Amino acid sequence: MLKVAVIGASGYTGVELLRILINHPEVEICCVTSRQHEGQTINQVFPSLHGLCDLICEPLDVAAISSRVDLVFTALPHKSAMEVIPGFLDAGCRVVDLSADYRLKDQQVYESWYQTHSSPALLNEAVYGLPELYREVIPPARLVANPGCYPTSVILGVAPLLKQGLIQRSSIIVDSKSGTSGAGRSAKQGSLYCEVNEGFKAYAIGNHRHTPEIEQELSSLAGEKIIINFTPHLLPVNRGILSTAYADLVEDISSDDLIALYSEFYADEPFVRIMPGREYPNIAFVKGTNFCDIGLVSDPRTRRVIVVSAIDNLVKGAAGQAVQNMNLMCGFDERRGLTIVPTFP
Amino acid sequence: MLKVAVIGASGYTGVELLRILINHPEVEICCVTSRQHEGQTINQVFPSLHGLCDLICEPLDVAAISSRVDLVFTALPHKSAMEVIPGFLDAGCRVVDLSADYRLKDQQVYESWYQTHSSPALLNEAVYGLPELYREVIPPARLVANPGCYPTSVILGVAPLLKQGLIQRSSIIVDSKSGTSGAGRSAKQGSLYCEVNEGFKAYAIGNHRHTPEIEQELSSLAGEKIIINFTPHLLPVNRGILSTAYADLVEDISSDDLIALYSEFYADEPFVRIMPGREYPNIAFVKGTNFCDIGLVSDPRTRRVIVVSAIDNLVKGAAGQAVQNMNLMCGFDERRGLTIVPTFP
Amino acid sequence: MLKVAVIGASGYTGVELLRILINHPEVEICCVTSRQHEGQTINQVFPSLHGLCDLICEPLDVAAISSRVDLVFTALPHKSAMEVIPGFLDAGCRVVDLSADYRLKDQQVYESWYQTHSSPALLNEAVYGLPELYREVIPPARLVANPGCYPTSVILGVAPLLKQGLIQRSSIIVDSKSGTSGAGRSAKQGSLYCEVNEGFKAYAIGNHRHTPEIEQELSSLAGEKIIINFTPHLLPVNRGILSTAYADLVEDISSDDLIALYSEFYADEPFVRIMPGREYPNIAFVKGTNFCDIGLVSDPRTRRVIVVSAIDNLVKGAAGQAVQNMNLMCGFDERRGLTIVPTFP
Amino acid sequence: MLKVAVIGASGYTGVELLRILINHPEVEICCVTSRQHEGQTINQVFPSLHGLCDLICEPLDVAAISSRVDLVFTALPHKSAMEVIPGFLDAGCRVVDLSADYRLKDQQVYESWYQTHSSPALLNEAVYGLPELYREVIPPARLVANPGCYPTSVILGVAPLLKQGLIQRSSIIVDSKSGTSGAGRSAKQGSLYCEVNEGFKAYAIGNHRHTPEIEQELSSLAGEKIIINFTPHLLPVNRGILSTAYADLVEDISSDDLIALYSEFYADEPFVRIMPGREYPNIAFVKGTNFCDIGLVSDPRTRRVIVVSAIDNLVKGAAGQAVQNMNLMCGFDERRGLTIVPTFP
Repeated sequence: MLKVAVIGASGYTGVELLRILINHPEVEICCVTSRQHEGQTINQVFPSLHGLCDLICEPLDVAAISSRVDLVFTALPHKSAMEVIPGFLDAGCRVVDLSADYRLKDQQVYESWYQTHSSPALLNEAVYGLPELYREVIPPARLVANPGCYPTSVILGVAPLLKQGLIQRSSIIVDSKSGTSGAGRSAKQGSLYCEVNEGFKAYAIGNHRHTPEIEQELSSLAGEKIIINFTPHLLPVNRGILSTAYADLVEDISSDDLIALYSEFYADEPFVRIMPGREYPNIAFVKGTNFCDIGLVSDPRTRRVIVVSAIDNLVKGAAGQAVQNMNLMCGFDERRGLTIVPTFP
Repeated sequence: MLKVAVIGASGYTGVELLRILINHPEVEICCVTSRQHEGQTINQVFPSLHGLCDLICEPLDVAAISSRVDLVFTALPHKSAMEVIPGFLDAGCRVVDLSADYRLKDQQVYESWYQTHSSPALLNEAVYGLPELYREVIPPARLVANPGCYPTSVILGVAPLLKQGLIQRSSIIVDSKSGTSGAGRSAKQGSLYCEVNEGFKAYAIGNHRHTPEIEQELSSLAGEKIIINFTPHLLPVNRGILSTAYADLVEDISSDDLIALYSEFYADEPFVRIMPGREYPNIAFVKGTNFCDIGLVSDPRTRRVIVVSAIDNLVKGAAGQAVQNMNLMCGFDERRGLTIVPTFP
Repeated sequence: MLKVAVIGASGYTGVELLRILINHPEVEICCVTSRQHEGQTINQVFPSLHGLCDLICEPLDVAAISSRVDLVFTALPHKSAMEVIPGFLDAGCRVVDLSADYRLKDQQVYESWYQTHSSPALLNEAVYGLPELYREVIPPARLVANPGCYPTSVILGVAPLLKQGLIQRSSIIVDSKSGTSGAGRSAKQGSLYCEVNEGFKAYAIGNHRHTPEIEQELSSLAGEKIIINFTPHLLPVNRGILSTAYADLVEDISSDDLIALYSEFYADEPFVRIMPGREYPNIAFVKGTNFCDIGLVSDPRTRRVIVVSAIDNLVKGAAGQAVQNMNLMCGFDERRGLTIVPTFP
Repeated sequence: MLKVAVIGASGYTGVELLRILINHPEVEICCVTSRQHEGQTINQVFPSLHGLCDLICEPLDVAAISSRVDLVFTALPHKSAMEVIPGFLDAGCRVVDLSADYRLKDQQVYESWYQTHSSPALLNEAVYGLPELYREVIPPARLVANPGCYPTSVILGVAPLLKQGLIQRSSIIVDSKSGTSGAGRSAKQGSLYCEVNEGFKAYAIGNHRHTPEIEQELSSLAGEKIIINFTPHLLPVNRGILSTAYADLVEDISSDDLIALYSEFYADEPFVRIMPGREYPNIAFVKGTNFCDIGLVSDPRTRRVIVVSAIDNLVKGAAGQAVQNMNLMCGFDERRGLTIVPTFP
């Protein structure tokens, strides 16, 4: 049994890791930490876990924890993550980091969107944990940077277009919509029920921190620098991201051909589902699962392609993908613990 | 592998059975039926099932189906269920019926709340499938009548009080609130998003059809005829029932003692969780699972007990309990396929 | 024009007062205060008010404000309210207080449920501002204690039963459900979107602070001490309270007769609507309005009456009733500013 | 008093017209029609209207109705509308049509997106009722074609850009999101609560019928043929449309300059509100009102402009704009009956 710790277990990403790991046949959860809830059992923090997990929330003591576990999931805010990850690595633990701290390869880019990086040497070592693109390099990694939720939906959605050179590279516009769990469990006025319910808005237009992460990966796929428009919106639902991407096609191609091309591109992927023609993804159909559903339209009137991709932001956009990475790192079947059927309705 | 059919697979109860059975290690789903969607694959009906189940919806041909399966789940409306169940039994299939047709023991009561019963002889044979009360008699049953959603939440909530003789038997008042999936997937104006969302109402006050079912079981527990007030309400959520029951205590007893008594009563039950003092159930904490969470207060000001019980109406209130019954009928571990961790948030 | 101030304008009750007062033909809003948002315009705090109100949030300076206005609405938390109200009264302002500080007549009761009262002498002078019961004494009042949201729904719901002596006085059980705006606009984890959405729970069973307020008024109606069970629940909607009350009838009376009796009792009330037989209130049908809708059933099986009452907790349960009280105090038509048609859906 | 009829009063647009007209000081509602609810009072159809409107739903008899009213609102589906409107006009009634039947000037375009037009001669006479663009020609009109909900949000959002020649005309991409009331009140599975709630999806990509309407008006503003990408999405809220539009700027211009330009363009418009810099519209802030809120960003990284516009689809997107048109047609103050403050939360 692989011994793991969930660092920062009292957030929505933390409890989602527990939801998946509790039923993972190869894993033993040995430690959960929470500064805010230290000394409480995790099922006091999340009564949903009564009878399922009664670990006590520990303080974040790297030395103590690293001696007891093989692999650590860090579900901390950026900045907090990089304060402890080098310690876990030095102590011989492998790490799947769900923060943004090791996703960007370029220290300068990181520092211009976030803050000074305290362990820039690790930026190169860290592997960007999107298995559909980096499956070969994840298994030996010590440190996997689990992708952001928006980036996961966007990169999987447009990767085949860029890889195949089907679109004008300066023409990508991404309009994304995320459920409210993406804003975390800390008490902020903007996340209150009455502020979100029956509302819908765009935010951080032109300056959301997931922009450079998306651009890094799209640039890598395209082999040249890609700059995009990325507009996130806040959806009044608990879970789910739906991204609608637009790009100019370089030549005519039908919706059917695009669908065939995507189906081929993702043929061996257990967690990517390409919708049949005229069917489009709905976040309701991936709820609770590690799936990324993708629908495609080629619009002959404007010669643009529209790609719609849907994920559960807490699963494929966070905890599920983290477990997928753990499975790859540890030689387990990639789908272990993740064969969850969507809960609909 | 047990071969099963889901009769009436295109409703919410049907798809929930599939969600659970797809991951059940002892079961092979051999057949799904839907009159409305005959000839379509079930993943066209529920795109959530893409890549997970591609059975074609068949017509309801009892002879053809019964030759291929061992056990049948009937997820049909009442009346439709009793039209086919005798046929399945005669053909040697065992049946878990999720309709109301075999829940009431008294034909006259059934006929006064529903309509003429076409196979009254089976009313006595059918076992009321609430494992917490009838675990001993379920295993050999040919026909299990899976309890209604409201009754499950209410009976589990007040059973210990009646069994221990702690309350005035004429004093029980039950105020229940159900999520909208309980109204089914057929297109009715009253179930439209805009009619339900941001609304809340009582309905069927004093005449809801689950009343005689609850009273039958409470009477059986009490050893005398019990009549209750039962008021259902419609909640703007997809899933969940929360029932708040009130009764006059026959003598003083503290909340702590009640909690201890319930914990003892349900000590060996894998799916009943008793909340600690001053913690109350929330439907959010049982979502997607077979749990029934129960919270208790003894109010010394009025010498009444208040019991709050929460279930997922589609799981412990329907498909999950049906699978629990199947497990018992077939000698599988009762928890097989049902060790689901709640999805929160 | 009556000059008014809204003290504590940055909460949900505050903005609701502004929504109503902006369109009130006899009122000029001269002042809004907010400690947290001092110096900001109120439409920065609530962008819904862009172009409608651009007052700047002032600090709470009693002397400065009282010199500029005739009447003050205090939309502050309890305790904060009583710290400033005596000052406003001394300076010659009339006050409609939306807090709990002057609702209870008995200082001891107040102090056992809240804290020490700093101006107990005003408890007797303050008028309980439920116009349907106290219309005669509101006009001359200097200080009106605006009723709580739950109490408004409950008292209006059962008043005719008690007044007419139709029920056993120890038998009243009230099961109430409130929208989330009742929890206010301060950032608390329990009020986060993801904590409330798709959830439903009871809270404060047996010890909610609105209990003594309800009991005070029911006792006054009955002419003897009434003790009730009161169980509040949290609904995943922005607005609305629905209370379901149960009581033992002292003699048989039909639903129709009850409806006739209620219709008579409230015949002259502009804001109480009695539902026809077999129709029940829905919070969706009073949204944004000052209405209290009441539905009634007499259950012959148990000889109990079930009363369902619905209000918008921010309107009849707070700001609307406060304006109704202001209208009475100032000799305006009671309906002025309150002839709002429900927003459905 | 202007005598009006609401034809098709039992839909969401119909009840919204009633909500506004009941409080309109210059209007008497003389007639409501509903085929489905003929003979019922409108408050049986919409219990929200108890005590506010007790008109009986009449059959749609053009001769009988036109003899009693001056102006008719037709809130019928397309095709049904054009079957009766010529009759009303011939009988001397003025008409505000909320269907799509007279919005498109080009019969061929209409017939390629809808069906054969039975009164094409009226296409030219009908005035497109977007007051911000056509205020001069609305007053004398006999027939006003009330704009679609999506088109209203989109046209108001991008009009200044096109009018000022600031964008590449082939570069417009519109990503719109609409609340569920836009799907109407008829019982369809896709509009059920459980199908919509906690879901989000795109639909009708590349072929939504509002596309030619938007293009007609944008072409008129630009003085040349405009073709756009338009992708509608379904939001799990009752009300509201938020459209996010993207276009390539022809030259650099800052966000502040764009905001200044829009503020100037709409300076005299009572129902358009331009957000300050870095503030973006939220459908929650226009709920129940006739406002269109617009926010703007110029993204220097891509030299694109992003325009976000928000309306209440049932008000500025339907009934409110219809009343605004009626006000203009009848010489009333344009804001009469529409000075509604948003209901937040």
